[in-house]
Amino acid sequence: MTALNVQLLMTGNEVMAGDTIDSNSAYMARELATIGIKISRRVTVNDNLEQLLIELNSMSATADIVIMNGGLGPTVDDLTSEALAVFSDSALQIHPDAKAQLEAWCERRGQALNDANKKQMLIPSGANIIPNATGSAPGIDLQHKGTRVFATPGVPSEMRHMMPIIIERISAKFDLTQRTTVRRLQTFGLGESNAQQLINNGDFDWPNTVELGFRASAPQMEVKLTIHDDSYHQDQERCVQYIHTLFGDHIVGEGDTTLAEAVLKLLQERQQTITTAESCTGGLIASALTQIPGASAAFHAGFVTYDNTIKASVLGVAENDLQRHGAVSEPVVRQMAEGALRKASADYAIAVSGVAGPDGGTDEKPVGTVWVAYGSRNTLQTLRLLWPLSRQLFQTMVTACTLDLVRRQLLGLPKYCRYVDQRQVVPTDQE
Amino acid sequence: MTALNVQLLMTGNEVMAGDTIDSNSAYMARELATIGIKISRRVTVNDNLEQLLIELNSMSATADIVIMNGGLGPTVDDLTSEALAVFSDSALQIHPDAKAQLEAWCERRGQALNDANKKQMLIPSGANIIPNATGSAPGIDLQHKGTRVFATPGVPSEMRHMMPIIIERISAKFDLTQRTTVRRLQTFGLGESNAQQLINNGDFDWPNTVELGFRASAPQMEVKLTIHDDSYHQDQERCVQYIHTLFGDHIVGEGDTTLAEAVLKLLQERQQTITTAESCTGGLIASALTQIPGASAAFHAGFVTYDNTIKASVLGVAENDLQRHGAVSEPVVRQMAEGALRKASADYAIAVSGVAGPDGGTDEKPVGTVWVAYGSRNTLQTLRLLWPLSRQLFQTMVTACTLDLVRRQLLGLPKYCRYVDQRQVVPTDQE
Repeated sequence: MTALNVQLLMTGNEVMAGDTIDSNSAYMARELATIGIKISRRVTVNDNLEQLLIELNSMSATADIVIMNGGLGPTVDDLTSEALAVFSDSALQIHPDAKAQLEAWCERRGQALNDANKKQMLIPSGANIIPNATGSAPGIDLQHKGTRVFATPGVPSEMRHMMPIIIERISAKFDLTQRTTVRRLQTFGLGESNAQQLINNGDFDWPNTVELGFRASAPQMEVKLTIHDDSYHQDQERCVQYIHTLFGDHIVGEGDTTLAEAVLKLLQERQQTITTAESCTGGLIASALTQIPGASAAFHAGFVTYDNTIKASVLGVAENDLQRHGAVSEPVVRQMAEGALRKASADYAIAVSGVAGPDGGTDEKPVGTVWVAYGSRNTLQTLRLLWPLSRQLFQTMVTACTLDLVRRQLLGLPKYCRYVDQRQVVPTDQE
Repeated sequence: MTALNVQLLMTGNEVMAGDTIDSNSAYMARELATIGIKISRRVTVNDNLEQLLIELNSMSATADIVIMNGGLGPTVDDLTSEALAVFSDSALQIHPDAKAQLEAWCERRGQALNDANKKQMLIPSGANIIPNATGSAPGIDLQHKGTRVFATPGVPSEMRHMMPIIIERISAKFDLTQRTTVRRLQTFGLGESNAQQLINNGDFDWPNTVELGFRASAPQMEVKLTIHDDSYHQDQERCVQYIHTLFGDHIVGEGDTTLAEAVLKLLQERQQTITTAESCTGGLIASALTQIPGASAAFHAGFVTYDNTIKASVLGVAENDLQRHGAVSEPVVRQMAEGALRKASADYAIAVSGVAGPDGGTDEKPVGTVWVAYGSRNTLQTLRLLWPLSRQLFQTMVTACTLDLVRRQLLGLPKYCRYVDQRQVVPTDQE
C-alpha cells in the first residue's frame, strides 16, 4: 500500500512576516500522526488570491488530502473561501449550516449579524462545512477531482476543535491500515556527530523498516525511532535495545523526560532531597527542578549566592578561602555545597561557581570556566570545566551537566558523560 | 522597481512531524524585513533528497533568492549539501574554508575530526561557505542560473549568526533602494486586543507610510513600527510618540529590552541592589535577573524557599504565621521579603508564594493564586493575584509581573499594569 499524500497549505501575512510563529502546523501534524498520517509537504503563503490558487492547483496534482489553515475570517484579506470556489470551479453561496452557525454565534454574544459575518456564510457550492465550536468561521470540506480539501481557521483554538472532526472524516473515507509508532529516547552529553559516528561504526544490521532521527537541542538530544506499520514492532524494539547498548549511560529516559525530571524521580523513589547553591547559573538549576510538577517532594531549598559576601554569610564559605582562591575555586564550591546541605538539611547538593561572561574572565580563569561540586555529605565530588559559550547557553549547559552528574551518582553509572570528559580541566595550580 | 522574489525552503523531519515548532522562519523573515525584503513563499519538507530537488527546481523558476534552513548537520538525514550539488549540477568536494572551520571547531573542543565532521566539509564545487560562528556546520552560498541559494543550519543560534552575513551579501549584490527602518517598543501587562482597541478608539490620524504590528509573546508584547523609505522618518517618530502617549507606563523600553534588564539598569544607576525570596517561581526570578550580563552589580543573593521549614529557618518567617495562615498568605510573603532584605543586605526585595499547580489548589486558594511582596524596607507592598495558567506559564507571568511592580515603584509610575488590575484579588478573609 502506498501512503496517503497529505499536504498543508498555511496562509497569513503575519505568519509570513515573522510576527507570528506558526505553531498550528505542528499541532496538525501531531494530530494526524495519531492515525498514521505523515505530512509530506507544507507551503506557507501571504493572503493573496493568485498565490493561493497556484498552490492549490499544484498541490492537487499530487495530494490526496490538502489541509488549509487561515484566511477564513471576516476581513477583506481572508480569501480562502473565494480561492476554493475558483479552484473547484463553483460559485460561492450561502450554506444553510454556515448560516445557522453564524446566527447562533451572534445570538450567544447578543449581537446582530453584520456584513463581515455574512461573508463567512459564503461557501463554494457542493462543499460541506466543518462546525466551529468556539469561533465564528465555519470550516470548509470539499472534494475536487482526486483531492479532498479541508480548510480550517487560523485561530489556534478553533483549528484544534476541528481536527478531531477532520480526522474522523479522513478515517471514514480512507483506508488507513498503516499505523505509525514513534519511540523517543532522550540523551545528554553525547553530541550529534558523535552519536552518528557510533552508529556508523557499529556492526548492527539496521532494519530498513525503522526510521532513525536525531533532534539536537540544547541541552538534550532526542533519538527517534519510527515505524509505519504495526508489524514492525519487533524491529523497532530491537533498534531501541541497540541504541540503549550503544549510548548506554547517556540515555536519560524515554518520551519527553528531562534531566531535572529524571533526578527528581530518582530522589523521590529514595525519599531523599536535593538542594542548590548557585553562583554563575543564578537560579537556573533551582528553576529547572521546580518547573517539574511535584518538585516539592524532593526539593526544599535553593540558594543563589551571587556575591562573595553572601557565599560567606549565607552558606558559611570561609572568607579566607574566598580571598586566597577566589570565588571560582575548588574550596569555595565545596564549601557552598556543604553549607547548602547543612542549611537545607538535604541529602544531595549541587554547587556551581564560574565565569558566565561576557566579562569577568582572566588568563587563569577565562570566560566559560566553572567549578562544580555535587553529591551527598559522604560522596561530595568536585570538578572544573571549561565551556566557552554565550552567557545563556553556558548557564543552560552547566545546569544540565550538574543534573546529569547527580543522576549518574544516584544510579551508580560512569561518573562523566562525554561532554564532561572533553571539557574537564585538571587544575595545575594550588586551588 | 519590482520587488525581489525571496522564498524559504525549510527541511526537517522533526519540524514536519510537529515535534519542533519552526521559529527559525519567523526570525529570518524579521531580519530580512530590515532590508525591505518580504518573503513571498515558504515551503517545508521532510529530509528527503527527491523532495528537496523538486522544491529547489520549482523555486528556481520564480525566485531571485532561496534561503534554505536545516539539513546541514553531520547525520545521514542531513541532505542539503547533496541536494544543492545535484541542483547546481556540480560535484561535492572538500572546501578549504569549510575544512579550516571544522578543524578549528574540533580543536577548540579538544577532539579529533571524525567521519561525520568530514561529511560537513563537502560543499558543491563553485559554492562559497557562510562561516558558522558557534557550531560545526558551514553554511552554503551558491548561484545557479538566476537563483542565489543560501543554506543555513537548523540550529537556531547558528542560523541567527549567519543572517547578518547573508543580509550583507544580498545587499552587496542586489539593488535594495527601499530602506526599511523598524522601531520596536517592548510592553508588559496590556494585552493585544486591548492595545488594538486603544488604537482604534484614538483620534490620531495614523499615516499610511508607517506599518503597525504587534508581536504578542509571553510575557512581553512588542509593538513594531515599520517604514519602507528613509523619508518617512518623521512620520515614524510621530507614531512612536503617539504609542508612548497611548500605552504610557506599560512601555518597558525600546529594542529588545526585557523587564529584568530595565530593573537592573534602574538599580545600577541608583547603586542599589535587589534580592529575591521565591517559593512558587522556584528560582525563575533570580534566573531572569542573572541572565543579564553585569547582573552582579545589582543582584547579590536570592533564596528559593520552597518548603515551609526553609521559609522559617532561612528567612525567619514565623512558624506561627505559617501554621495559621498557610504558606500562601500575606504575612508569610511579607516576612519572606523582610527576611531576604535582611539576609542579603539588599535595598529592594521580591517575594512570592503561590500555587503553581497542577495540584495543590484548594477552594480558598485555587491553582493560580499567588501572594507577592515587593519594595524596600520602607515601601514594602503586598498583593494577591489569581492567574490560572499552566505551571510554566504561571511561573513566567508571575516572574515578569513582579519585576514590573518593582520597575513601577522605582520610576514612580502608577502601581499596577492592566493585567494586575484585572487579576488582583482583594482578600475577604483574615489573612
